[in-house]
Amino acid sequence: MCLVRQGFNLVITHGNGPQVGNILLKNEAAANMLPVMPLDVCVADSQGSIGYIIQQAMLNHLRAAGIRRYVVTMITQVVVDKNDPAFKKPTKPVGPFFDQRRATELMLEKKWAMIEDSDRGFRRVVPSPKPLKVIQRYMIRDLAQAGHIVIAVGGGGIPIWKKENSEYEGIEAVVDKDAASAVLAREMETDHFIILTEVPCVFLNYGKPDQTPVRQMTLTEARKYSEEKQFGVGSMAPKIEAAIDFVAASSREALITSAESLASAMENKEGTRIVPDAVQARKTELF
Amino acid sequence: MCLVRQGFNLVITHGNGPQVGNILLKNEAAANMLPVMPLDVCVADSQGSIGYIIQQAMLNHLRAAGIRRYVVTMITQVVVDKNDPAFKKPTKPVGPFFDQRRATELMLEKKWAMIEDSDRGFRRVVPSPKPLKVIQRYMIRDLAQAGHIVIAVGGGGIPIWKKENSEYEGIEAVVDKDAASAVLAREMETDHFIILTEVPCVFLNYGKPDQTPVRQMTLTEARKYSEEKQFGVGSMAPKIEAAIDFVAASSREALITSAESLASAMENKEGTRIVPDAVQARKTELF
Repeated sequence: MCLVRQGFNLVITHGNGPQVGNILLKNEAAANMLPVMPLDVCVADSQGSIGYIIQQAMLNHLRAAGIRRYVVTMITQVVVDKNDPAFKKPTKPVGPFFDQRRATELMLEKKWAMIEDSDRGFRRVVPSPKPLKVIQRYMIRDLAQAGHIVIAVGGGGIPIWKKENSEYEGIEAVVDKDAASAVLAREMETDHFIILTEVPCVFLNYGKPDQTPVRQMTLTEARKYSEEKQFGVGSMAPKIEAAIDFVAASSREALITSAESLASAMENKEGTRIVPDAVQARKTELF
Repeated sequence: MCLVRQGFNLVITHGNGPQVGNILLKNEAAANMLPVMPLDVCVADSQGSIGYIIQQAMLNHLRAAGIRRYVVTMITQVVVDKNDPAFKKPTKPVGPFFDQRRATELMLEKKWAMIEDSDRGFRRVVPSPKPLKVIQRYMIRDLAQAGHIVIAVGGGGIPIWKKENSEYEGIEAVVDKDAASAVLAREMETDHFIILTEVPCVFLNYGKPDQTPVRQMTLTEARKYSEEKQFGVGSMAPKIEAAIDFVAASSREALITSAESLASAMENKEGTRIVPDAVQARKTELF
């Protein structure tokens, strides 16, 4: 809301892990009477309901604050490459745990890839290909520029690829939400790219005795830390990679902070900024 | 597609009966392990997945035809009146059939209204209040006017009402899709309001030996036939009422036809037009 008060145009993105997980669980619970929906359709479902809940909450906040702006969720498709190496090696576990009998059935019937979890049984794994393009980028930009608040690429977007006949087709995969958000921000040429997470800023040696908060890193520094595996796989690492992607493409800054620290991070008092290398150089020149 | 080729800006609405029915079935199938989602959230889910499937299909048609226009689904809330008489008398059956034990449980726990179907058990009934306003009307209009194709008010929209503190709140109800579409068309001041259904045009005495196709009716005629209960409850009747609502408010025409007959109906060779009374009068003057 502090961004809205400051007059920013706003596009909001979000994850969908727990929600699409529940949708997959429900699919399985009803598998004896209803067709199991493919994963792309389940992602679309989750964009609908999560988006609705966010837009309803924001609408009420805006009305309470007397701000006459509207919020809408756009069901968003994200294009991935059919030749992405991720399709050769599905790694992302999704949905319920299965016993061996049902797992074998699903592997045969639906050609699902499965991994075994020593304690809890079998679980489906799907590819997580790199997002290339957001189909609705122009619509999202047009609405946001008109002052409307847009919720988009929920859960990283619905992954689609181009078939040989050049038609788009939904695929059973998941796209990383941070990566998809960076692609959208880049395509829309947004001035700011902000990733909200649990922590107020990025730390080096996170969770260790010598944990150090980072207030600013250049693109080169961020890449170096990233290569050093400074950041948690599946938590901070994809956020840093998304920030690197945006900053490298746009020469603008990315900000990583928590929802609680956002207002003060916008005043440059908290959070971590990932900045183009040139900015750092310019600052150095001042001395 | 014929409308797109002719250069019309387009907003598409749709129902969600079978899809939201399946979502409710899945909810019930997983009720022992996951919370049952309220109906407004299920409608949002269905807007997401149905919208995705429509927008993907249209995107492919547009690309095949070399038309550079984009399609997006907007998750849409529709405001209803807390004092709508429908809330006193829920009439719309939704979701699975329950045995007596589970039905009693749900009536007690969730305060659901239930009706008994002699053969198949108990079924939940929900109110179907009149739609008053589409929250996203300005966004839908702005995008459509920019040439984008918008899918909106799916399943009649997610019903919300104003609580006493003036906050909006989702409610467990369904809104008629034809009625919601008419409200949106009226609010957007669209030039055309087209309802696609199974039959190429409206009939009087439908299904009887003296069944007669109607190519045009004035507002007054449509109201008269409607009062005479000429049209099927839950099928043609709500479409005629929606057409009446739009024509009365806009003084423009409404068209009822089938998808197959649309192209020829746009050339006034098929379909049924509901026209303002003045149009009829003007035509008569010519002779």
